[in-house]
Amino acid sequence: MSQWKIVSQKPVFKTQLFNIREIVFKNKRGTRKTHHVVERDTTVVVFPLTDQYEVYLISEYRYLLNRVLLEAVAGFVKRGEMPLATAKRELQEETGIDASQLEEITRFDMAASIIKARIHIFIAKGLEFGKKHLDEDEEISLIKIPLSLAMEKVMLGEITDSASIIGIFFLDKLRREKKL
Amino acid sequence: MSQWKIVSQKPVFKTQLFNIREIVFKNKRGTRKTHHVVERDTTVVVFPLTDQYEVYLISEYRYLLNRVLLEAVAGFVKRGEMPLATAKRELQEETGIDASQLEEITRFDMAASIIKARIHIFIAKGLEFGKKHLDEDEEISLIKIPLSLAMEKVMLGEITDSASIIGIFFLDKLRREKKL
Repeated sequence: MSQWKIVSQKPVFKTQLFNIREIVFKNKRGTRKTHHVVERDTTVVVFPLTDQYEVYLISEYRYLLNRVLLEAVAGFVKRGEMPLATAKRELQEETGIDASQLEEITRFDMAASIIKARIHIFIAKGLEFGKKHLDEDEEISLIKIPLSLAMEKVMLGEITDSASIIGIFFLDKLRREKKL
Repeated sequence: MSQWKIVSQKPVFKTQLFNIREIVFKNKRGTRKTHHVVERDTTVVVFPLTDQYEVYLISEYRYLLNRVLLEAVAGFVKRGEMPLATAKRELQEETGIDASQLEEITRFDMAASIIKARIHIFIAKGLEFGKKHLDEDEEISLIKIPLSLAMEKVMLGEITDSASIIGIFFLDKLRREKKL
């Protein structure tokens, strides 16, 4: 455990998708320090996979990074919603896909300090295509590529966000172990 | 590109390690919306690797997640510092290791939206051990494990932060391709 104990904490900034919490610590010698942490809502990412080991990704312009990203279907877990329900909903909204099988393969933390953000990764199989229901401000293209090519794009640095990278690595590993 | 154009933006919250920026967008119909983004300083993670494919990780209590984490050596890039210099400095400070070879193997973004945080991943070889120079509030243990065991811990969800997971997957892949 740490020599630093939490003395007090309070929310200091609030948005729709994350909060900032200010935390004051004290050690045995009485020294104090103040940290700020970002608490982001939990998200899910979903990888729809065909029987031929092709994966559906989306291509979307992201103003945060000022470029078009190739990335996994993703979305925020709504209050009171289970991550599995979020995965089902986001898959339907962003791609129009209904999946007969939806399974969580792992979950991870974006960071170990400063930014608290939990991500659940799902695989979707038994795919059926319906109509998309995009949010007004989502403009995305659905792209189907072999899992092996997705893996190449990770290694080449062409897929750059943590959730997409980790999901593709897991799928590649599970496939090599014949668990997919 | 997006139908939404940035109308204005300003910093609204500032800490030592991240800022919050408020961005106002407008679309063709004149509708406005406001987003907040977190801009975190760039970090590096470093994986010291022995000739026997063992990797050094650290075990540290993290109050953010309220548990002891097994994770890679990591640290923030200081203003004006190159990531390679940060990797060298953090490795020395946290583990006492000097490495004759230090190479960047990939870089990634924590997220595609809301949180802007770039991470550079390094591998360190040709290891020599000296004395640690920990920051006053760092209490960490150095742990040496076979890369194959680190990979198992990733698959079992025992290593949970994005940078450590991605680094271990890259090392495992490079090793299988005999590029390590």
